[in-house]
Amino acid sequence: MPSLAIHRLPMAHPGDMSAVAALIAAGTLRAGDVRAVIGKTEGNGGLNDFTRGFFTQSLMLLLARETGESVATLTARIPCVLSGGTEGALSPHYLVFAVDRAVAGPRGLALGTAFSPPTPASEIGRDAQIAAVTQAVRDAMADAGITRAEDVALVQVKAPCAQAPGAEARSSDPRLLMALSRAAAALGVALALGDVAEAGEGDLLRDLTKYSNRASISSGIEVVANEVVVFGYAEGWAPGLTAGVAPMADLLDLPGVVAAFRAAGLPADPSVPADQRHRVLGVIAKGEPEKAGHIRGARHTMLGDTDLDAQRHLRGALGAIVASVAGDGQVFVSGGAEHQGPPGGGLVCVFARG
Amino acid sequence: MPSLAIHRLPMAHPGDMSAVAALIAAGTLRAGDVRAVIGKTEGNGGLNDFTRGFFTQSLMLLLARETGESVATLTARIPCVLSGGTEGALSPHYLVFAVDRAVAGPRGLALGTAFSPPTPASEIGRDAQIAAVTQAVRDAMADAGITRAEDVALVQVKAPCAQAPGAEARSSDPRLLMALSRAAAALGVALALGDVAEAGEGDLLRDLTKYSNRASISSGIEVVANEVVVFGYAEGWAPGLTAGVAPMADLLDLPGVVAAFRAAGLPADPSVPADQRHRVLGVIAKGEPEKAGHIRGARHTMLGDTDLDAQRHLRGALGAIVASVAGDGQVFVSGGAEHQGPPGGGLVCVFARG
Amino acid sequence: MPSLAIHRLPMAHPGDMSAVAALIAAGTLRAGDVRAVIGKTEGNGGLNDFTRGFFTQSLMLLLARETGESVATLTARIPCVLSGGTEGALSPHYLVFAVDRAVAGPRGLALGTAFSPPTPASEIGRDAQIAAVTQAVRDAMADAGITRAEDVALVQVKAPCAQAPGAEARSSDPRLLMALSRAAAALGVALALGDVAEAGEGDLLRDLTKYSNRASISSGIEVVANEVVVFGYAEGWAPGLTAGVAPMADLLDLPGVVAAFRAAGLPADPSVPADQRHRVLGVIAKGEPEKAGHIRGARHTMLGDTDLDAQRHLRGALGAIVASVAGDGQVFVSGGAEHQGPPGGGLVCVFARG
Amino acid sequence: MPSLAIHRLPMAHPGDMSAVAALIAAGTLRAGDVRAVIGKTEGNGGLNDFTRGFFTQSLMLLLARETGESVATLTARIPCVLSGGTEGALSPHYLVFAVDRAVAGPRGLALGTAFSPPTPASEIGRDAQIAAVTQAVRDAMADAGITRAEDVALVQVKAPCAQAPGAEARSSDPRLLMALSRAAAALGVALALGDVAEAGEGDLLRDLTKYSNRASISSGIEVVANEVVVFGYAEGWAPGLTAGVAPMADLLDLPGVVAAFRAAGLPADPSVPADQRHRVLGVIAKGEPEKAGHIRGARHTMLGDTDLDAQRHLRGALGAIVASVAGDGQVFVSGGAEHQGPPGGGLVCVFARG
Repeated sequence: MPSLAIHRLPMAHPGDMSAVAALIAAGTLRAGDVRAVIGKTEGNGGLNDFTRGFFTQSLMLLLARETGESVATLTARIPCVLSGGTEGALSPHYLVFAVDRAVAGPRGLALGTAFSPPTPASEIGRDAQIAAVTQAVRDAMADAGITRAEDVALVQVKAPCAQAPGAEARSSDPRLLMALSRAAAALGVALALGDVAEAGEGDLLRDLTKYSNRASISSGIEVVANEVVVFGYAEGWAPGLTAGVAPMADLLDLPGVVAAFRAAGLPADPSVPADQRHRVLGVIAKGEPEKAGHIRGARHTMLGDTDLDAQRHLRGALGAIVASVAGDGQVFVSGGAEHQGPPGGGLVCVFARG
Repeated sequence: MPSLAIHRLPMAHPGDMSAVAALIAAGTLRAGDVRAVIGKTEGNGGLNDFTRGFFTQSLMLLLARETGESVATLTARIPCVLSGGTEGALSPHYLVFAVDRAVAGPRGLALGTAFSPPTPASEIGRDAQIAAVTQAVRDAMADAGITRAEDVALVQVKAPCAQAPGAEARSSDPRLLMALSRAAAALGVALALGDVAEAGEGDLLRDLTKYSNRASISSGIEVVANEVVVFGYAEGWAPGLTAGVAPMADLLDLPGVVAAFRAAGLPADPSVPADQRHRVLGVIAKGEPEKAGHIRGARHTMLGDTDLDAQRHLRGALGAIVASVAGDGQVFVSGGAEHQGPPGGGLVCVFARG
Repeated sequence: MPSLAIHRLPMAHPGDMSAVAALIAAGTLRAGDVRAVIGKTEGNGGLNDFTRGFFTQSLMLLLARETGESVATLTARIPCVLSGGTEGALSPHYLVFAVDRAVAGPRGLALGTAFSPPTPASEIGRDAQIAAVTQAVRDAMADAGITRAEDVALVQVKAPCAQAPGAEARSSDPRLLMALSRAAAALGVALALGDVAEAGEGDLLRDLTKYSNRASISSGIEVVANEVVVFGYAEGWAPGLTAGVAPMADLLDLPGVVAAFRAAGLPADPSVPADQRHRVLGVIAKGEPEKAGHIRGARHTMLGDTDLDAQRHLRGALGAIVASVAGDGQVFVSGGAEHQGPPGGGLVCVFARG
Repeated sequence: MPSLAIHRLPMAHPGDMSAVAALIAAGTLRAGDVRAVIGKTEGNGGLNDFTRGFFTQSLMLLLARETGESVATLTARIPCVLSGGTEGALSPHYLVFAVDRAVAGPRGLALGTAFSPPTPASEIGRDAQIAAVTQAVRDAMADAGITRAEDVALVQVKAPCAQAPGAEARSSDPRLLMALSRAAAALGVALALGDVAEAGEGDLLRDLTKYSNRASISSGIEVVANEVVVFGYAEGWAPGLTAGVAPMADLLDLPGVVAAFRAAGLPADPSVPADQRHRVLGVIAKGEPEKAGHIRGARHTMLGDTDLDAQRHLRGALGAIVASVAGDGQVFVSGGAEHQGPPGGGLVCVFARG
């Protein structure tokens, strides 16, 4: 019955909502249909990046005006995943996912969302969080009407963290706790999808051979629960959209990137041709600075640069590779890819018009 | 008669000469055969990047010990082109170009060098510099035995600048004077090769439709003359090495990068396969942060980032794209590409074993 | 009749309004009494610093809720001067200036505000802007009831700029136009106060011997008019508050900083003693990275650092000196001090409880 | 019998030895008299700061030419302590300490040096290193002829680290191991001077109430032993030089800084007057970014800034405060002050002409 629409929109700055406002004004988008937002803002992507909060405040104010719902209500039902950092070729933009339930279809790309119960700091990075995410993925699949794990294309999770972790937390270091939260969410997804047979808190950040190629996780202190968005194929949804996903073996795995675009039905050879670029509706990629300090035997300098954060290095590099295949810089590329794709590598997911 | 060898060597830090010392100790390289060095060091690539000077001092001390020549003599005959900045996937490394004149061959990849007379600050970015570079390119071609402009693959120039430009200089801003010096050298190369029919100082940084796809220029205050290295094909040189070059239309021109590797005879599809990577002897690429603030319509944030220099953004992005095709991060990628390749784009040159 | 109150408030992040909300909730501050806000947020202080906009949006939303006025109305009457950058010892905070008109007094520290007519881009950095600021300073003095120029302690101006200056603008470079706007506003203040006898657009950024020790200027693209806040002494205002101001001859002029605190009646020797610190209500300082590259003969590296912006260097240094006298890091220190204090130096203004 | 001379010299860049070369050429300094060098170079002060190595290589080459000794011999007998980072008001410079043994005196400022045996990675941050430093301090005191601990003004130590710590090391994280090495050296000094009664490896980075106000430590991977320089008063040395030291309670302890200058006999009130500045021969200060995130109750942002390293924040702030008292930016200010001065604070040592 429902129909999914994906709008890829530019922003002039993190508080600029003019593009989505114009869509609503033109009747192209109903504010009440918005189900999830995923975007890149131009901050530094670190602890002191406030562009994510500025964007979210601005967007929720707009949607509140348009829908009459309160900001609190909207925040509690619309996952809003922002990643800071648009180094190099990357371009600030956001994807608005809207579902029109009045439209019917035989089978197509579906979206479902779910929120776990609030996760206290003591559960972050522990078995309780893994289990909560696994359940939330199942709930989101049910929400979308996706019945089989193999029909899932991507699970995007926004996982909670704690600004000042107390004694009960697994780590008192907020950066490490954030990584543990991402890791727990990734393995929660992997278990729900059957990508790994079993996993526990002892595996987090340790056994990186356990991973899912379909999990994209961010974590933040402003979130209190695990917010889950599932994309996949389901009966009843309108056809026309596709999602393709592929792992990257390492940062330089250009064939892996090309494979994701081809999996979405796009003729990338190696780039998407200019006359096909309008079919690219959104791209999501995750990656990590290689931990041992070298890629294919060549030393890299991402980890020891006092002036330039390793994640900024990573996004600039991975972002350019993905953008060079996609054809422009409006691609979501984010670091912190623990258990998301192969160790030292990552994954790419492409949404396309069929 | 001569034979060109290209050694691609890693460094653990800017003062680490152990790789070239080992080659000399093993008899693989004769110190006296070294004709040019081109490399990437891990500084920030800006005015306060001292890794270039540290590398050059360390290398010249080693060569002086090995050859018995003085550092001053070596510096005056061996162009040593260092570019700082190994953002993202880039790896600190250097290419040692050595010529063994005792070997004979029918026709092959040749190298020639030439130095213009000392260029006073008053001539930088003026017609006098353009003419001096044009003449030096002709001298370097003659040195290599290259007789036709179409046989030239690449001209690498290290152009002079002035730390504190005086009243007679075209600009008192050292950064602008550096750009003017690169521009003058690029158009000097373009004229020598017939890539443009005519050009004068009024065109510098203004008429960017005048450019050469075979000019790679760096400039620095430590240089007093235009130091020129020409690569191309000539009679009498040993066969076995190739050089391929291709322009990039913009930062995301992945097909352009692939074309350069294919022009060098490498089966890039889109990456060089693992079993062919040993044939990649060296890669040189130039690019620029797009000046209007958007690439293919998508806004980029390279130019207005207070924390991260535009050239660091650029190298991280372009470096990753080139490395993803080459197969590893030991590629020379540098900004400041005025009149070197199409405006807003750049060029890639690949040296390969046939 | 009126009474001025100054509240110095902390923020946990740029969107954190809890401190001012608590004051309002406690009845200590009436939202309708707020006349001006001056603060430091923790961004990088450059073109891509969005913490200023985030703070302003958050504050105006709060005041709109509390007063019933629209955000547009509030923005048009309350100057809100934010400066990004809390390097080193500096602490994110803001000063709320509130005026209670129901209170009477014989003579005391007064505040007045005025807005010039909207300033088109073509007038920025030109005689028209200088004249408009001079008039606005007179209007703000009248608003405060200050009758003599020598009674003025400080004039804070938020001057307009243009994001994409057109052909009619004095400069197409937004950073230069911002500096010209600050310079024009500073000389407009200097003329209004009689600190210089005459000045015109030809003096801007050129004749730095023309300056005011009582002008603190910021400029921003979000402002359309010259927003002026005047502090000084006037009849009818409640006593109890003081303002002291002193110039700094250069960045290291510690005696100049101490002089400003003493001028406000504080026993700085050299620091304000712990038991007197509660009397420090607010500190505003302006400074500049010395342009010739050396301070008192010693070379500094602020201007040529590719990784760290010169203004970040400056604020970290000047901020620490001022904070070491004030006793804590809640001091407003900002760069861009053209014609504000002696060339290469700056000025310090201290608000204190008597 | 001996006489100590302190030369404070500028450098135009990290490889610029012209100032010391000029002193030698003029006969003011005998190269063979150089006993220690302490300086600031303009790198970022972090793991990828190569300006320290560039300076040291350049200096040792010069001294080798002048003395006829080998670089290895010179490196093994002359402690050369470089600290990267000249943020804000700081100025690149170095102090050359030379001892003329042909001169006699009744009692004066003395210098002694000592090297511990090579310290393997397994001993770093352990009791063995603490004991080795304690012994080296005693050896250096004996070398100087200083007989009582209370006559010691300052002990400067360059402590070893390991680039790739193995399994036997106390930590596999090179940054943590560097901090442990500084801590062990500081407590080694504290024990030798009687500033703490007892201390062991369990106290390192934990019990910060154990510290010395007379220990200034740096650590680096290029050092293999603990290199110790002791300054203090001893019989037989020529009079005329003084050394004053004082602790800083926190980053804003301006009275503490002033106290150190006064302890050296300089009339700082609060700054050294212009006509007395020639008497300032050298200043050494250590400090730390406060760990809890606030100074005197005001939140600082040094620890969570993704774009600007905490130590760069710290040096810019502390450097400016010290320079504003000294009168210019040629002061040695360095972070990493574990157990050197009070926790959250640091120390200042001033060398002056009497």
